[in-house]
Amino acid sequence: MYKVDLNSDLGESFGAYKLGMDYEIIKYVSSVNIACGWHAGDPMVMDRTVKMCAVNGVAVGAHPGYPDLVGFGRRHMNISFDEAKAYVKYQLGALMSFAASNGVKVQHLKAHGAMGNDSNKNENLAKAICEAVAEVDKSIILLSFAGGAVVRIAKEMGLRCANEVFADRAYRDDYTLVPRGEPGAMITDTDLAAKRIVRMVKEGVVETITGKVIPIDVHSVCVHGDTPAAITIVENLRGAFERENISIANLNSIIK
Amino acid sequence: MYKVDLNSDLGESFGAYKLGMDYEIIKYVSSVNIACGWHAGDPMVMDRTVKMCAVNGVAVGAHPGYPDLVGFGRRHMNISFDEAKAYVKYQLGALMSFAASNGVKVQHLKAHGAMGNDSNKNENLAKAICEAVAEVDKSIILLSFAGGAVVRIAKEMGLRCANEVFADRAYRDDYTLVPRGEPGAMITDTDLAAKRIVRMVKEGVVETITGKVIPIDVHSVCVHGDTPAAITIVENLRGAFERENISIANLNSIIK
Amino acid sequence: MYKVDLNSDLGESFGAYKLGMDYEIIKYVSSVNIACGWHAGDPMVMDRTVKMCAVNGVAVGAHPGYPDLVGFGRRHMNISFDEAKAYVKYQLGALMSFAASNGVKVQHLKAHGAMGNDSNKNENLAKAICEAVAEVDKSIILLSFAGGAVVRIAKEMGLRCANEVFADRAYRDDYTLVPRGEPGAMITDTDLAAKRIVRMVKEGVVETITGKVIPIDVHSVCVHGDTPAAITIVENLRGAFERENISIANLNSIIK
Amino acid sequence: MYKVDLNSDLGESFGAYKLGMDYEIIKYVSSVNIACGWHAGDPMVMDRTVKMCAVNGVAVGAHPGYPDLVGFGRRHMNISFDEAKAYVKYQLGALMSFAASNGVKVQHLKAHGAMGNDSNKNENLAKAICEAVAEVDKSIILLSFAGGAVVRIAKEMGLRCANEVFADRAYRDDYTLVPRGEPGAMITDTDLAAKRIVRMVKEGVVETITGKVIPIDVHSVCVHGDTPAAITIVENLRGAFERENISIANLNSIIK
Repeated sequence: MYKVDLNSDLGESFGAYKLGMDYEIIKYVSSVNIACGWHAGDPMVMDRTVKMCAVNGVAVGAHPGYPDLVGFGRRHMNISFDEAKAYVKYQLGALMSFAASNGVKVQHLKAHGAMGNDSNKNENLAKAICEAVAEVDKSIILLSFAGGAVVRIAKEMGLRCANEVFADRAYRDDYTLVPRGEPGAMITDTDLAAKRIVRMVKEGVVETITGKVIPIDVHSVCVHGDTPAAITIVENLRGAFERENISIANLNSIIK
Repeated sequence: MYKVDLNSDLGESFGAYKLGMDYEIIKYVSSVNIACGWHAGDPMVMDRTVKMCAVNGVAVGAHPGYPDLVGFGRRHMNISFDEAKAYVKYQLGALMSFAASNGVKVQHLKAHGAMGNDSNKNENLAKAICEAVAEVDKSIILLSFAGGAVVRIAKEMGLRCANEVFADRAYRDDYTLVPRGEPGAMITDTDLAAKRIVRMVKEGVVETITGKVIPIDVHSVCVHGDTPAAITIVENLRGAFERENISIANLNSIIK
Repeated sequence: MYKVDLNSDLGESFGAYKLGMDYEIIKYVSSVNIACGWHAGDPMVMDRTVKMCAVNGVAVGAHPGYPDLVGFGRRHMNISFDEAKAYVKYQLGALMSFAASNGVKVQHLKAHGAMGNDSNKNENLAKAICEAVAEVDKSIILLSFAGGAVVRIAKEMGLRCANEVFADRAYRDDYTLVPRGEPGAMITDTDLAAKRIVRMVKEGVVETITGKVIPIDVHSVCVHGDTPAAITIVENLRGAFERENISIANLNSIIK
Repeated sequence: MYKVDLNSDLGESFGAYKLGMDYEIIKYVSSVNIACGWHAGDPMVMDRTVKMCAVNGVAVGAHPGYPDLVGFGRRHMNISFDEAKAYVKYQLGALMSFAASNGVKVQHLKAHGAMGNDSNKNENLAKAICEAVAEVDKSIILLSFAGGAVVRIAKEMGLRCANEVFADRAYRDDYTLVPRGEPGAMITDTDLAAKRIVRMVKEGVVETITGKVIPIDVHSVCVHGDTPAAITIVENLRGAFERENISIANLNSIIK
């Protein structure tokens, strides 16, 4: 029996500002990455989002980012190893407080935006994130790009980790994503996207932009919930999973 | 045998900005209130301060404040019950992460500045703070003004709580402090200050500004560490404690 | 010939967060209040909004607020006279920079949210706002509640000022608004709302919640642009103005 | 008669946090770079610092930085051309407001920390800064590293610009500073430092770390005022200037 997790970024509203269709997308996913107030989110939003996860039986994850609210954490910042470690601990701890309040545990941590991207190229940053998690709570799973530095280092450190893939993005031979804007970067055909994910899960391979078929180990698929179109993509993906006998399960039930 | 806790506010530096004589004052106290990044402090400072507490065997406490860095949390803000609760949880959780990393537990929570003052008059705010702590970790002690709303409500809720007094401040008959600037507000004679505290601890009473002697239950004395003069006051107080056979102990060993 | 200004709050988006229907409402108003980055808005949004005003021939105004982004400037903060003055100058200057860049001048300043409300009760705050404007540029008009402290003090100081009224709100005999939530607070009948404004403009009076008719001097009507319903209200109001030969003109052409 | 400007970074305090010896150093310099609230400084500090400049007859300059208070603007951030332009305008405008209030004009602008360093390598960023200044007020002088991208682009755009040198730093053949930490990076001999500056001013050359003598055009020398030692360096430099008949003058009297 095949199992895979579906994860999505939630809790990105801030004060009077609303973002995302959290109440829609939560019905479709098994794990949720919650912004921790630095690039998005605030304590009220965090509490509400964790509560929503608890009610829906969806696993809670921390989604820390750079201290850049106006840039939504999408801009590279040159922070030190110690800063990265402390920043991740701070945000993770803040979320753990809302998890405890709502009777759940933080299942995983996934770095957001530029911190997420940087951490898959920058081993120093990847190590800082892994050490932060390990020192706060060893049972928390590091969720990150399949083939990236975070999962590699987490594995080396003996931490629980999970590989994430993207249904709507093309891969290069080195497991990096074809940058948006380049031809073929986005998989816009939702059936093709679903087919690719099914193949990754069942056969453990993906066809890259060059046509090469490379091995890929998938634990979780990242889906978006910020537009009605995004919801359609998820529904389509779930339909394919059902037909292919792939069950959706959160990371805790997939990762040892 | 009499026991009392000495607490002080630490970890109030921020980025390039240094504040306080943390490395001096920590030698004299048994419990420390650590700023959590909203009115002062940052993740690097929090980590460093918790580490320093762990090394010195001093108990760690959270010192949450209003979201007002430029005002150092000293300005009243009109936040709602739900906001207060979420803000306290966020800051407490962030600190718990550094506590866990350093192998210690958060012993207590004391609201900072305007939040601290407001919480002793505003029952709504006091209740929000108590509920926040109770929902995150029932074993954490609420440290607040003797005679104020926080300790009263904490007691009603069955939470652990501790009464704090000030060596250098005069009291009114209703347990509120004589406002700075009013005659007699500050106890500048350090011997008198020490004598008053000793009397509070041993006899459970304090003489107010009106000359009335009122009962007061003391668990902790708040001391400052931001000036060399402040250090002298603490040394003097400790000297008096030694002569009077009052031992210094952290809150966990005093509060059931 | 009767003349009146229509003003609306714009530029309240922030980073990735979008708020308001700025591109819709700007077609209907003559003066715009632009958030200055403290309670809403950011430099990119400010630049874009000023540019939009310049293109549409709509007058630019500063809309400073308390330093409370997560609370959208809607929460009372207890700031000092000097702080208020400096905070208003800072935000006004920042906007003036974008005005200069786009070849326009800042016409007016209107305090936002809690700062706006507080300033009409708190003479100290009102004075700080007036002095800030006077010291930066004496030609800038202070726009505030008809009957409030800001316009009264601005007048005493010999500054240009303009009275603002609300089409959708009931007044009390002392010119304060009936608080939302109280019966009769909101004028939901758009025809009645328009009729009331027309009467204010032509006859210089308004009927209060108690039935009393009090004199009111109107220079500007505040309208909202954050919902399709709000746009309908403005369209209705403009229709009434056209029928009643009331022309819409910005504050600079109304206030001496 | 030789003339040169002495500039220093001031106004870097923030709220309760004090930084720098502003009241000392201001007696020695002719131009001051004032933090604008993003990496340091706040409206109260800005007002106080501009006032101090007005009283001391010292020219006021804007010192904008990245939006990174906890990092003191010292960390590289990957911001876009439009963001850089808007961020500089915002901070410049805010300072202009305090300048207007105090009856002075902003003489110059110098980017702070990482923004300053980045702008001398990154032509895109340099251009954004130059355009921001040009669009707000063409008379404002761009102060930046001699040999860097900002002054080159400012010159190309026909803007007023000034070359800054450092007394205590060694140069490489390409006009970049030898990075701190490398051997010979710091000129610790204050007499040698003064001699080097005198030679730059009088002969228009500097000896680089490789021993090569390269032409350098000097308008301003950057001095620090954050330690007693820094004050000594400035005093020494002023002594050398006096002996060598080099007069100290602000940029407005040096740059056409």
